[in-house]
Amino acid sequence: MASGSWEEFFAVHLPPTDFEDNRSLLKEFCKRHDQYGNKIVLVTSGGTTVPLEHNTVRFVDNFSAGTRGSASAEYFLEHGYAVIFMHRQKSLEPFTRHFSGQKLLDMLDLQERGPNTTITVKPDSVFALAPVLARYQAAHAAGALLHVSFTTVSEYFWLLRAACECLAHTGARALLYLAAAVSDFYVPKDRVPTHKMQSASGPPVIQLNLVPKMLAPLVNLWVPEAYVVSFKLETDENLLITKARAALEKYKHKMVVANLLQTRHQRVILVSPDANQEIVLTREEVHAGVDIEATIVAEIVRLHADHIAGVAPR
Amino acid sequence: MASGSWEEFFAVHLPPTDFEDNRSLLKEFCKRHDQYGNKIVLVTSGGTTVPLEHNTVRFVDNFSAGTRGSASAEYFLEHGYAVIFMHRQKSLEPFTRHFSGQKLLDMLDLQERGPNTTITVKPDSVFALAPVLARYQAAHAAGALLHVSFTTVSEYFWLLRAACECLAHTGARALLYLAAAVSDFYVPKDRVPTHKMQSASGPPVIQLNLVPKMLAPLVNLWVPEAYVVSFKLETDENLLITKARAALEKYKHKMVVANLLQTRHQRVILVSPDANQEIVLTREEVHAGVDIEATIVAEIVRLHADHIAGVAPR
Repeated sequence: MASGSWEEFFAVHLPPTDFEDNRSLLKEFCKRHDQYGNKIVLVTSGGTTVPLEHNTVRFVDNFSAGTRGSASAEYFLEHGYAVIFMHRQKSLEPFTRHFSGQKLLDMLDLQERGPNTTITVKPDSVFALAPVLARYQAAHAAGALLHVSFTTVSEYFWLLRAACECLAHTGARALLYLAAAVSDFYVPKDRVPTHKMQSASGPPVIQLNLVPKMLAPLVNLWVPEAYVVSFKLETDENLLITKARAALEKYKHKMVVANLLQTRHQRVILVSPDANQEIVLTREEVHAGVDIEATIVAEIVRLHADHIAGVAPR
Repeated sequence: MASGSWEEFFAVHLPPTDFEDNRSLLKEFCKRHDQYGNKIVLVTSGGTTVPLEHNTVRFVDNFSAGTRGSASAEYFLEHGYAVIFMHRQKSLEPFTRHFSGQKLLDMLDLQERGPNTTITVKPDSVFALAPVLARYQAAHAAGALLHVSFTTVSEYFWLLRAACECLAHTGARALLYLAAAVSDFYVPKDRVPTHKMQSASGPPVIQLNLVPKMLAPLVNLWVPEAYVVSFKLETDENLLITKARAALEKYKHKMVVANLLQTRHQRVILVSPDANQEIVLTREEVHAGVDIEATIVAEIVRLHADHIAGVAPR
């Protein structure tokens, strides 16, 4: 096994403790939706951590609140997809993303009457909350949304591979929308100290290794018939398209959604083998709170339908 | 100026963009409560980040959900304190900590009747939500709780010093409860790259510097009359008391709350110059969801009252 290969990564990093529970959930979910011939999307969302200690006090994190993934999951549900929402614990989630905890408490009126106490949503908040709540309840009633969560980059990869194992049966109806911000680096297990690093021993040097590129086995081996979309976040405009196109050529998947950290909520470029398609929100749309994910998802849903139609039935 | 001094840290790191707004809020809050002779506690909560890039994609983080700080803030309010809750953005907050976004949505019943649509809390959830909501509303109606937030370690220090400037006037009635998990290390400004580190250039080495110990100027210069409590989180039992006592002797403040990562929700040791006082929850209390912070805060409130009584009036 070549050093730094994906096989080695799985050999060295043990599966997370709740792995079998999550694998059962994923299997049951995919099997149920496959029976109905539903389209299934795996949305990954949020950043992964790289622990610097076994008893983790410190870790390297990737910037991501989960805005892109959580919004996109809602739009895939609207397009009739079954959605596996694989997210960083405590990152934004579909529906609840609209209301932080405090905002929700501020919406409530308390009528204290002892055992007959009631709590109602203030009339002027019903307008904003009702449509979101209706969509939330509908998605859950239909069993169309499965949440699974990760924290470390190793937990992420274990879950990703398990989801792919289930989605392999879904064939071309499977869509992978890999919006999570996955660490490129990790600290090899044998270099992670057991206890908290002591500042008295002087400032530490953290030596990081490159994480193996999981997109290669994912596209070639795990879900070869699926429509795979990856994301590329950069801060330097000059590198953006070049790097997106290089990834596409290297991994041979269907699309890279390229975006800059500074403008990611109003502009993305859908980079596919034969086109660069720019999606830009107008200033008015940004002010009106329009989600750019509505357009991104609509476009990908259209391309995924073409992909399904073009693939020979299994 | 000695290299690595706190003066140098403030000289090199610019104040956060919303700094003046927060400083005004802090001033107004302290002035108002000082007029009434109220006791004021500064509760810091959550972890600080150390950015690895100016356009931050990656950062080193300290493990802390904000459990200790957010729970403690509620108990200080119950003891009649005015509370400055200085927390990491998106970490747990008092009152809302009891209900994640999803839990709250699950509590709601939607009665869709067009313009007369109403949303009510399900009767079986009122029992759990009503007392928390009542305390939340009371704290806000009384103007007894101020939220200010930080993300990076430099934002944390700027806010901490600003809060201390205001609390200096509060004298012995000020209590500092420094529960935030503050990074010991940072990447000096001139070594932080502007753009996202590129994995193509090979695995990076992160060289960290020691953060200056702010507890020294805080105790000696900024709030010399206040009752100052710091926290020590370790993973190695053998180091815990030794390190807590060493901090106490070095900084001459009033108390170190010592706790182990693994058992921090059921056991802490209040280390003061003349005693080690252990607080342990029974297994029954842990299962019943008792907050150990109720006991920690009650004990510190008692000691703070002694401190106020023992200090000559200003």
